[in-house]
Amino acid sequence: MASKTKLKISILGSGNLAWHLAPALENLGYDIQEIYSRKLAHAEKLSAKIYESNTQDHLDFSSSQADIFLIAVSDFAIESIINEAVFPPHALIVHTSGTTSIDILNRFKNHAVFYPVQTFSKSCMILFKGIPIAIEASNENSKQLLASIADNLSGNYTFLESEDRRSLHLAAVFACNFTNHLLGIAQQILGERDLEMTILQPLIKETIYKAMTSESAFEVQTGPAVRRDTTTLKNHLQLLIGNPEYQEIYKVLSENIVAESLK
Amino acid sequence: MASKTKLKISILGSGNLAWHLAPALENLGYDIQEIYSRKLAHAEKLSAKIYESNTQDHLDFSSSQADIFLIAVSDFAIESIINEAVFPPHALIVHTSGTTSIDILNRFKNHAVFYPVQTFSKSCMILFKGIPIAIEASNENSKQLLASIADNLSGNYTFLESEDRRSLHLAAVFACNFTNHLLGIAQQILGERDLEMTILQPLIKETIYKAMTSESAFEVQTGPAVRRDTTTLKNHLQLLIGNPEYQEIYKVLSENIVAESLK
Repeated sequence: MASKTKLKISILGSGNLAWHLAPALENLGYDIQEIYSRKLAHAEKLSAKIYESNTQDHLDFSSSQADIFLIAVSDFAIESIINEAVFPPHALIVHTSGTTSIDILNRFKNHAVFYPVQTFSKSCMILFKGIPIAIEASNENSKQLLASIADNLSGNYTFLESEDRRSLHLAAVFACNFTNHLLGIAQQILGERDLEMTILQPLIKETIYKAMTSESAFEVQTGPAVRRDTTTLKNHLQLLIGNPEYQEIYKVLSENIVAESLK
Repeated sequence: MASKTKLKISILGSGNLAWHLAPALENLGYDIQEIYSRKLAHAEKLSAKIYESNTQDHLDFSSSQADIFLIAVSDFAIESIINEAVFPPHALIVHTSGTTSIDILNRFKNHAVFYPVQTFSKSCMILFKGIPIAIEASNENSKQLLASIADNLSGNYTFLESEDRRSLHLAAVFACNFTNHLLGIAQQILGERDLEMTILQPLIKETIYKAMTSESAFEVQTGPAVRRDTTTLKNHLQLLIGNPEYQEIYKVLSENIVAESLK
C-alpha cells in the first residue's frame, strides 16, 4: 500500500482476535490509530505488540483520525459498546462476529461485518494467509474497502449475508470448538493410563482427511456406534462410569450416529 | 522376507479392517492361506483383491497350513467365532479388537492381540506405514512374531496390555468417530445454506494442530461456550430449533466445555 493513502484503523477489543489482527494489519502497512479496551492495561499490552498506537478505556472517538473502527469483542459486548461509543460520522464501523447480524450497526451510516473463520488463541502464532474472511457491508464502497483489506490479509474472502454467516459460525462451533473438546477428552482418557496423544495422530489425520474429501462425512463413519456394536458401546460406558458427563456425551453422540445411519 | 520362511496367515472377517489388511500383508510377502466370512460371497470379494487364497464360510481350520489366524470382525462376533472354530493346536490365534480383552482367547495355547489404531473404510485407500499397532501376547515368541509383522507393516508398534488398549480405543472413538460425526453435522448445517465444507478447512486444520501441539486441548479452547457468550449460545440453539438431536449435542458439549473451564 502507498503510504499516501495509508488507511487508519482503530481496534476495539484486546481479546484473542484483536491480539492477532492488530499486528497483522500493521505489518501490511495499515496505520493502527487507537486500541480500546475496557481495561487500559489490556489495551496497553496489545499496543506494546505493535509499532505505535494510542490506547484508551473510554469510547469517545470523536476526535479520532481513523477511517475504520473494528469491533473485535465478544458478541454480548457489541451492543453496549456501540450504544456508548461516539465515532466520527463518516467512519466505517465494523464488527467481527460470526453470529451477530449486521443490523446491530444500522445507526451508523457506513457499517459492515468482517468475520475471519478461524480460531485464535493468544498463545498460538497464526498466519492470516488463506483464512477465509466473510464480508458484509451496508454499501458498495465499504464492501470493496474491506475486500481489499481481506485480500491483503488472507487472499481468501467471500461476501456472505448475516443469515449465511450465522450458519457458518454455528458449523464452525461444531467443527472446531466441539472437536477440540473431544480431543481434550481423548487426551484425558489417555492421560489416565500414561498414554500420549501422539498415538492417535495418524488416526486423527486420516479422520479429517476422509471427512473433508468424502462427499459426506456421515457416509464414511466407522466405529462401534455405526456398526451397532452394543458390546463395545456397553464396555465403553462402563469404562466412563467415574465421569457421568463423558458418559452423557458418549451416549448422545452414539445415538445420533445410529440415527443418522438409519436415514 | 525370505520365501523359505514365508509366514502363512489366515484372515477371519471381510469387513473394513480385513479388506485393507489382507492385501497389505500379501504385498509384504506373507502368504494369505484362507479368508473366512460368514457369507462366502464376501470372502470371495476380498480374495479377488489378492493373488491367491482359499475362501470358506465354515470355521473348521483343522487342516489349515496357517501359522497365524487373524480375527478381524466386530467385537460382538469374536466370541461366537472362537467358540465354533477349530484351529491347528500350535497356531497363533489373534484378535484385532481395541476393546476386547486378550483373555477371551485364553483357551488357545498361543494367543495375542494386534490392534491397528486407525479408521478403515472400504472406499478409502490407506497406507499402513506409520499406523500405530498395539500388540499384546500370551508369550514372548508370539509377541516377537507379531512385532516383526507390525514392523514390516507400519514401522510403528507398541506393547499394550488389555486395559491400556481399551482406554486407547475409547479415546479413539472420541477423537475419530465422534469428531467425524461433528464434521458431518457441520457439513449439514453449511449444506442447508449452500455453503461448502472447504470454507472450514483452515479452521479445522488449525484446531487439530493447536490441540495436538498444546499441552492440553482444553487450555486452548475457544468459542462461545468457554467465553460464556450466552447471547451466541442462545442464538445457536434457536438456529437448531428444527433439529432437537443437534440441539442436544450442542447443549451437552457446551455445558461440558464450561464445566471443564471451571476446573
